[in-house]
Amino acid sequence: MKELREKIQKEGTVLGENVLKVDGFLTHQIDAKLMSQIGQRFAELYKDRGITKIVTIEASGIAPAVFAGLAMDVPVIFARKQKSLTMNQELLTASVYSFTKQVTNDISISTKFLTKNDHVLVIDDFLANGQAALGLIELCQQAGATVEGIGIVIEKSFQNGRQLIVDKGYRVDSLARIASLENNEVHFIIEEED
Amino acid sequence: MKELREKIQKEGTVLGENVLKVDGFLTHQIDAKLMSQIGQRFAELYKDRGITKIVTIEASGIAPAVFAGLAMDVPVIFARKQKSLTMNQELLTASVYSFTKQVTNDISISTKFLTKNDHVLVIDDFLANGQAALGLIELCQQAGATVEGIGIVIEKSFQNGRQLIVDKGYRVDSLARIASLENNEVHFIIEEED
Repeated sequence: MKELREKIQKEGTVLGENVLKVDGFLTHQIDAKLMSQIGQRFAELYKDRGITKIVTIEASGIAPAVFAGLAMDVPVIFARKQKSLTMNQELLTASVYSFTKQVTNDISISTKFLTKNDHVLVIDDFLANGQAALGLIELCQQAGATVEGIGIVIEKSFQNGRQLIVDKGYRVDSLARIASLENNEVHFIIEEED
Repeated sequence: MKELREKIQKEGTVLGENVLKVDGFLTHQIDAKLMSQIGQRFAELYKDRGITKIVTIEASGIAPAVFAGLAMDVPVIFARKQKSLTMNQELLTASVYSFTKQVTNDISISTKFLTKNDHVLVIDDFLANGQAALGLIELCQQAGATVEGIGIVIEKSFQNGRQLIVDKGYRVDSLARIASLENNEVHFIIEEED
């Protein structure tokens, strides 16, 4: 997605060979207009897949997910990283290790919002080692729901997350794919003409 | 806001005299269409206040805030409840006690996204004891920014948060005001004809 790649080139900061900071428009400050375009793009990519629910994870996944939810007219569920006192019903739970934060979180979704009749589009802000996406897929599997695909805003294609997910038979659509962050420069994999 | 009150009556669950659970459309599963209407309503209420930034807090504040950001064409910043390894620049920080979760969190915003030239609309999902909103106001004050008002989705008017904020001289706009949750029923304060 050309607008997204341009935004990353213009406003992203490379911190070493593995870390791209995009806190100016995605992970801390949010460019709502760009997120709306991203949501519409996911809706277009999955328009023939009968999506009934979008599943994401707090916090940075929520913005792209809710715009996709509006464009597709389906509810959006965000998995929580810790249990809250008012989530007292049964929970679907999976463990996710974050390489960025170096902690393991239990992520959870209330059983009442996902069923075996659901066709889910999973959305997240980043795909790197794939742990968050695999955790979200696991929650959907626990509910018996069908995962139609994984929509990612920024993929670090030099890490193994995409391969892990594709190897399990799932479709992955990343709107920006980063080949490398070497020499403090962002190099993209460009697959489309847009 | 009539659509919001109807949604609360239809899908909210009263858990005791203080707790209203709205995890079906706001705090866990999100109704993106309703959030879009809410964002547009905030934009309408603050259209003459020269808003340059919207400030909210993860996670449930993000959905209403990003739709307001789209409607007002301004960036949205969400305060984080814990520091992440990639937020290594200077931070504005305030302590917030959550009565629901019974913990104190440090909330923070990167100094680079808020300046003394900013006119801020603070948005949050709930206003009860006012601690989160006061923490967000404090972060804006630390940056020298002007807080133009506090936009709240659901206010529990029988708790003291609104009064604490009004006493400090700030404008509060709550789209649904709850007078009481007694007898497991939601009673609203209705101020407008919409």
